[in-house]
Amino acid sequence: MAEKGTLVVVSGPSGAGKGTVLNLVMETDPRFVYSVSATTRAPREGEIDGVHYHFVTRETFEEYIREGALVEHTEYSGNYYGTLKSEIEGKLEEGKNVILEIEVDGAMQIKSKFPDSVLIMLVTPDYKTLEARLRGRGTNTEEDIRRRLDRACEELKLMDQYDFLVINYDNMAQKAAEDILGIVSAEEHATARNAGFPERFFAED
Amino acid sequence: MAEKGTLVVVSGPSGAGKGTVLNLVMETDPRFVYSVSATTRAPREGEIDGVHYHFVTRETFEEYIREGALVEHTEYSGNYYGTLKSEIEGKLEEGKNVILEIEVDGAMQIKSKFPDSVLIMLVTPDYKTLEARLRGRGTNTEEDIRRRLDRACEELKLMDQYDFLVINYDNMAQKAAEDILGIVSAEEHATARNAGFPERFFAED
Repeated sequence: MAEKGTLVVVSGPSGAGKGTVLNLVMETDPRFVYSVSATTRAPREGEIDGVHYHFVTRETFEEYIREGALVEHTEYSGNYYGTLKSEIEGKLEEGKNVILEIEVDGAMQIKSKFPDSVLIMLVTPDYKTLEARLRGRGTNTEEDIRRRLDRACEELKLMDQYDFLVINYDNMAQKAAEDILGIVSAEEHATARNAGFPERFFAED
Repeated sequence: MAEKGTLVVVSGPSGAGKGTVLNLVMETDPRFVYSVSATTRAPREGEIDGVHYHFVTRETFEEYIREGALVEHTEYSGNYYGTLKSEIEGKLEEGKNVILEIEVDGAMQIKSKFPDSVLIMLVTPDYKTLEARLRGRGTNTEEDIRRRLDRACEELKLMDQYDFLVINYDNMAQKAAEDILGIVSAEEHATARNAGFPERFFAED
């Protein structure tokens, strides 16, 4: 019912299936769009500037920080990652639901700046499934898998900082996508987001 | 994901279509059941004790009050109306989503006793539609219509005491029912209702 779009933050362990589930969300409802992050890391093969990331220099990123052009940013493995204000504000005004797929600390920055944002943690049903998915990729070293599993444990401890928990069961990504669509639809019905309704109710048109 | 059912309070003006919409909710998802209110008013033609209401004497109702057997109650037009604790607690434990179709003051009592309950206000899109529906019934006197419209205005002022607003557009009761189903489904994903998840995540089964 609300006309402005919703800012939807999705975090969760590497291996939870965020990419798959969020692509299904966007295919099912074209009102959902990704926010493209800015980063100082180098593009990987096949990554396109402006599509997968806005690839910028360290100098440019630090200028963004100084100018307050970012709504959240973090440094990870020696690279900056962040979300440009310009990337999300116009889309929200157009009524798009903007998806930020970001880490926990970025999510906390978003929640404090955009109290109406919806924070969703996407997880596997259990630890075994997460481990199996990470190993199943076959591209990760044992050390990398351990690091990702440890990180997942840290993230789960912060679950209560999120508004919603969605479980991505094996072969049920569509269900997880529908759960996310349902959560955002419900948020659109929150009375806090419809404070203008009584006035419209009584308006003579 | 939560195994216990959700207490769903639905209020809204007479003429909003609560009965139609809530019947569709229950037909669509059998996990939803009505709570049968207790009342001291006399049964109307066709009303069955234990189905439409628990019809009780004034003495019995006042005993319920003294014993704390009611989770909410109110007096209206000289009659008591209330919800028996026994009517809802067992059903919630069974995983049923229990619907209370009650007035605003009862809703406030429920919210304070059951903070996890979901309060939904169901309304017509505007005042003109509400008036047309009340007149369309043909069974109400002009005085009765005026009284119900005044009451609707009072109720709308309390909208922000509710969690969600659902609009029942003309000929779109199924959409309103789906909105309610979506809201309750989203609530089941609230992290506050899934505090036990991290433990289950790490459990060796």
